[in-house]
Parts: sequence; structure tokens; C-alpha cells
Amino acid sequence: MTEVITAVYEVSGDDPEARAAGAAVEQSHELPTALAPASALVSLARVVSVERSAGGPARATIAYPVELAGAELTQLLVVLLGNISLQDGLRLVDLDVPASLPAAWTRPHPAVAGIRRLVGAPTRPLLATALKPVGLSPEGLAAQAYAFAAGGIDIIKDDQGLANQVWAPFRERVAAVTDAVARANAEHGTSARYLPAVSGPGALFEERLRFARERGADGALVLPGISGYDRICVAREVFGADGILYAHPSFLGGFTAAGSHGIAPDVLFGLISRLAGADAAIFPSYGGRFSLTRVECERIAAASSRPFAGLAPVLPSPGGGMTVARADELVGVYGRDVLLLIGADLHRDGALRENTERFRETAERLG
Amino acid sequence: MTEVITAVYEVSGDDPEARAAGAAVEQSHELPTALAPASALVSLARVVSVERSAGGPARATIAYPVELAGAELTQLLVVLLGNISLQDGLRLVDLDVPASLPAAWTRPHPAVAGIRRLVGAPTRPLLATALKPVGLSPEGLAAQAYAFAAGGIDIIKDDQGLANQVWAPFRERVAAVTDAVARANAEHGTSARYLPAVSGPGALFEERLRFARERGADGALVLPGISGYDRICVAREVFGADGILYAHPSFLGGFTAAGSHGIAPDVLFGLISRLAGADAAIFPSYGGRFSLTRVECERIAAASSRPFAGLAPVLPSPGGGMTVARADELVGVYGRDVLLLIGADLHRDGALRENTERFRETAERLG
Repeated sequence: MTEVITAVYEVSGDDPEARAAGAAVEQSHELPTALAPASALVSLARVVSVERSAGGPARATIAYPVELAGAELTQLLVVLLGNISLQDGLRLVDLDVPASLPAAWTRPHPAVAGIRRLVGAPTRPLLATALKPVGLSPEGLAAQAYAFAAGGIDIIKDDQGLANQVWAPFRERVAAVTDAVARANAEHGTSARYLPAVSGPGALFEERLRFARERGADGALVLPGISGYDRICVAREVFGADGILYAHPSFLGGFTAAGSHGIAPDVLFGLISRLAGADAAIFPSYGGRFSLTRVECERIAAASSRPFAGLAPVLPSPGGGMTVARADELVGVYGRDVLLLIGADLHRDGALRENTERFRETAERLG
Repeated sequence: MTEVITAVYEVSGDDPEARAAGAAVEQSHELPTALAPASALVSLARVVSVERSAGGPARATIAYPVELAGAELTQLLVVLLGNISLQDGLRLVDLDVPASLPAAWTRPHPAVAGIRRLVGAPTRPLLATALKPVGLSPEGLAAQAYAFAAGGIDIIKDDQGLANQVWAPFRERVAAVTDAVARANAEHGTSARYLPAVSGPGALFEERLRFARERGADGALVLPGISGYDRICVAREVFGADGILYAHPSFLGGFTAAGSHGIAPDVLFGLISRLAGADAAIFPSYGGRFSLTRVECERIAAASSRPFAGLAPVLPSPGGGMTVARADELVGVYGRDVLLLIGADLHRDGALRENTERFRETAERLG
């Protein structure tokens, strides 16, 4: 018997059985079965079950022959939601794949345990921040990085809006910031790691990663909504088993902003991030500037570490307007295996180092 | 005065002025203005206007300094909708950019006039179909391609679900199909062009494109929702000025499936396809298996050719369950500068060639 990829969809509307049957064909044959040659039926997906629920969407489970994904992450995404992403009333809400499938493209990577080792923090909540805004000079950003590192932050990333603009071109920025972080770590006995944002188009994507690695960056912030999830695997090839790859949700929100289509946030930020081999994944936490509920966020944390396809956990990284004052609450909800991402709140009063020290003290107390 | 990128958003909710102001900061500084150093204010976006409308969303116009995009398509998408894609109630509905911006990454390409020249059809509606389903052998797909080419189709693409699966591995498939199309064109005096689907991950993306080009393919079907829009530019580098690049909407539907967030279909399938330098762009037409309305589709056709940033028009390609019987109606709506994509209907009764001949006769009559 062939192995299968199992996907669960929430289905709205009057006839969920018909919609599920349509989705199974759309996502495998894309041709009415009656018109498909018999020899091709081997690749047809199958509706396993449709469970109706009173007052809510039905849940349809579809089994796809694993060969449909062709052992490629890109094609797996096509199979799971390619065409039906265009249909309102179908939402991908759960997922399982045989371990052999991601084994074809994932490589050893730090994941949660490795990040803890790299920053020397075996148990406490982990801390991230962002260099911003766009418009600052490399020196200005490097000064921020020095203050954050001296204050005891674990991960410093570029703002997702930092690319290769005239105010702080990529190479100048990466050179200035890696130097500043190394100096702060040496002078203060800290272990901050710097992840530049790399969204660079075409061949520049890999070229920038190589430059960053050679210049001493510890990994990268990758934007799979902009660059494609497979670019996380490209970044892994460059950075190897010790590189920290941090996934940012930029341009992915179409999937999560409404409940009736797209992808459930826990599947997107938890499971799909793990399939791509990300070490940590940013998502917009409840109680910030974005739309997710607390329940959705708790599910993201659960999907980040539950057994799934033989894959390592990903570190959930709630962001989007978090504050140090909320760290206790956030750790209560997400647990200690979390990478708290706090941006603006660490900039308050221009006291970046002091604010970071307070953030770190809070984490030590909670660890 | 600096040049600007102008984006128009539909804004739902009670206080559109506040949401627009928030979006302008989110998409440029991502840091409250009060915390931003004065030297960085040069990159801050500006709300130009917020027009309320009775009973519908407001329209907010935001001007971004063009330098924010760093002359890169990837970063332009980050600026237009990166973080706010995650917010329900904000929808990108119009867009203008200085011609100098896409000039940084676009290259000469066939566009509408070039495709017409390549297939020898100066005025009539153009015709496309898909090889399918996944599960067929290279020989089975090649036999389909021969029949379509002999019948007078213009463009033959792989189904978006064809990647590198065991049933028809990429190289075997491309070799068999290019041979079959060349033979049919030679034997029947036709001009069919073949575009294999290329979604291959990482470095395989470019490797497959190179193989396809060397083996005689005429361009490629690219899936920007899976691979990233910048991969269209990568494909352009490989195929050059005569390669036909056909954009497929797979995995892009999160943006269009609901009206309260994401990207209006005309902006996504019309304007953004043109920014990337696609020659033709598939979208799910009204009256098929997907959710767009006729009005939305008319807007896609308009956005495909209206003056925009000095860019060539893109050929709108309505698909998703179209039939030959509807060709008159579709040409009435979309005009003659259209690439009608008909899949299953050409497979009816196994009479691929005869069905295609009827499709072509219809197009000649309408041309």
C-alpha cells in the first residue's frame, strides 16, 4: 500500500461532501476522473472522511499518494493548497506526512536545542529583537546591535524591511553589525547572534547569504512568503548545521487573515515552518498589532513541538507589538521554549541596553 | 522631491484614518515615529488621503519613498503588503510606481505582441491548454501534446501539478513533449509552443529551466506563489527575450479568496504580474470552479494592459473550468488580447485533436 499525505480541511457551505470530492480531484488530477486514462488513476487523491458539525464548517480529510509531492517541498505545497487556495470556504487545518518525505530535503539544523546551545541558555525563555527602522545608517544600526548584545539579548535580526536600500546597503550593514555584535560579546561576555534579513532577488539571495556567512553572521532572517519556502533550504545549504534560520511571516498573511480559507496559523507557522527546516518562526501574537486570537496562538505553540513527520521542533516566536511587561504572561501561554520577539518596546527612551537588561532579567527569573 | 510608490488600500472598520496611519508606519519604519531617530525619517511613508464611503470600506492612499524598495521586486512586495498582509481589514486595491523602479529588474520579453509573433496570430484570441493529469507517463503526455499541437493550439503548458514525480520525471517529460510538439508542428504546419511547469526547489529551479531551454522548450510555467515572484526574473535570465513566461496562480489564493484583506485580483494578476515581467498570467475566471466575479475579471483584463510604470501589457489568461462553448462570451468580456486556457473540455470523448480544431476555428471566427 502506498504511503499518503493526509490533509484536513475545514469546508464551509451546504454540501461539504461534494466540495471535498472536488478538492481531492483539483489537488491531484485537476481533470474529471471520467476523462483520466486508467493508467493515471494511481495518483488520484481520496476523500477519507467528511465530518459535519452543527453550526460550524465540516472537516474533510483527504489522502494524497505521497508520490504526488515528488519528494519536493515546493510540490508538496502545490498538492496541499495550490489551486484550492483560490477557493473561499476551504481551509487547511491539519496535516501529516510520512517522515520519508521531508527527509528528502531537510538537513541537520540547530532547532530549539541547538539555538539554546549556541546562546548558552539551556532552559530560560529566549530573547530576540530587531534593528530598525529602515532609513538608519549602518553605523546607527550597528550601535543598536551593540547595545542589544551588551544588554544580553540572544538573537538580533534585521527588520524585515531592511534589504539593500541606499541608507544601509546590505554588505555595509552586515559588516558593521557583525563587528559590533562580536565586540559587544567580547567586551561583555554575552552570546548574541546576528541574523541579517535576506530577501534578495534571484541569484543575489544566495550571494548575500554567502557574504553574510563569510562576514560572521550566525544565520539569516528569511521571508518565505516573498522568497518561497524552498529558499529556507537554500539558506540551509549555505549556513550548514549551525546556522540559525529564522522565518518571518511577511506577505504570508493572506493565508491567515480570514478564517474561511487559507491555512490555519498553527499549520502555517508551526508545521510548514518545520517542513522547511526553519529553526524559529515569527508569528503575530495575540494582544499586539495583528489579528490572531490567543487560542490560535496556543495552537501555534503546540504545533511547533508536537511529534510531526520525524522533524525537530521549531521555536515559536511571538511578535508584532510585544512588551517586556507582558513577558510573564507570554511565557505562561507559550512555555519556556519560546523566542520572545520584542522590537519597539526595547527602543523606549533610547535606553536600548537598559531595556534589554530588564528583558534578560525577566527571562532569567522565568527560566 | 523624492519619487514615490503609491498604493491604495481598502480599509474596513471604524477609524480608517488611524488604520491608514498605522499601515504607513508598519510598512516603512515598523517603529513608532517618536522612537525613530530624526536621520531615519527620510524613509517614512505618508498617508496622502483617506476617502470614506457610505456603507463600504474607505480608500486610503499611501506614498512610500521609492528608495524603500531598494530597486528590488522582492522588497517592493515587502513594502506594499509584507506585514499588513497579516491584518484583516486592509486590502491592496491599486498601485503605481515610477517607471525607473521595474526598469531595474525587468528585461525585454515577448509580452502580448511577442507571443502573437511567435505563434503567428496577429489579431485573434490566443489559445492555451494543459497536459494532465499527474500520473500519466511521458509518452502519454507527449501524445496529448501532439494532438493539441496538430489541432492548432497556441500554447501547451504542463499542469501545475506536474513537477518531477516518478510517473513522468521532469527531464523525460520535457524531452518527450518537446519532440512531440516539434513533430506535430512540422507535420501539420502549426506553431504550438510548449511551456513545462518549473517549480523545482532551490538550485533545481534554474537547472530545470536550463535543461528545458536546451531541449527546445519555448519558455516555462512559473508558480510565483510557490517560488516567489523574483523567480520569474530568474526564468527570464535563462530564457531571454523570446522565452514565454506564463504565471500560474497556485498558492496565491489566500490574497484573493476574501474581499476584506489581501490583494485585489486585478492588482495581483494584472499589475504585479507585469512588474515581474510575466508574458501571460492565469487567473480563475468567473463562471468556473473558483470564486472571482465577472466584474473582478473585467478589472483583471483592464489592469493587464492599461498604462502602468512603462511596462508591457501581460496577456490575461482566464482558466479554471472554461469551455469552448463559452469562447464567444469570454472574448466578449476579455477582448481579443486574451489567452483562453481550456483544459478538461478539450479532453472530452478522448477527441483532443478534434476538440482543439473546434477551439481554433472558434478563435479564427472571433479574430
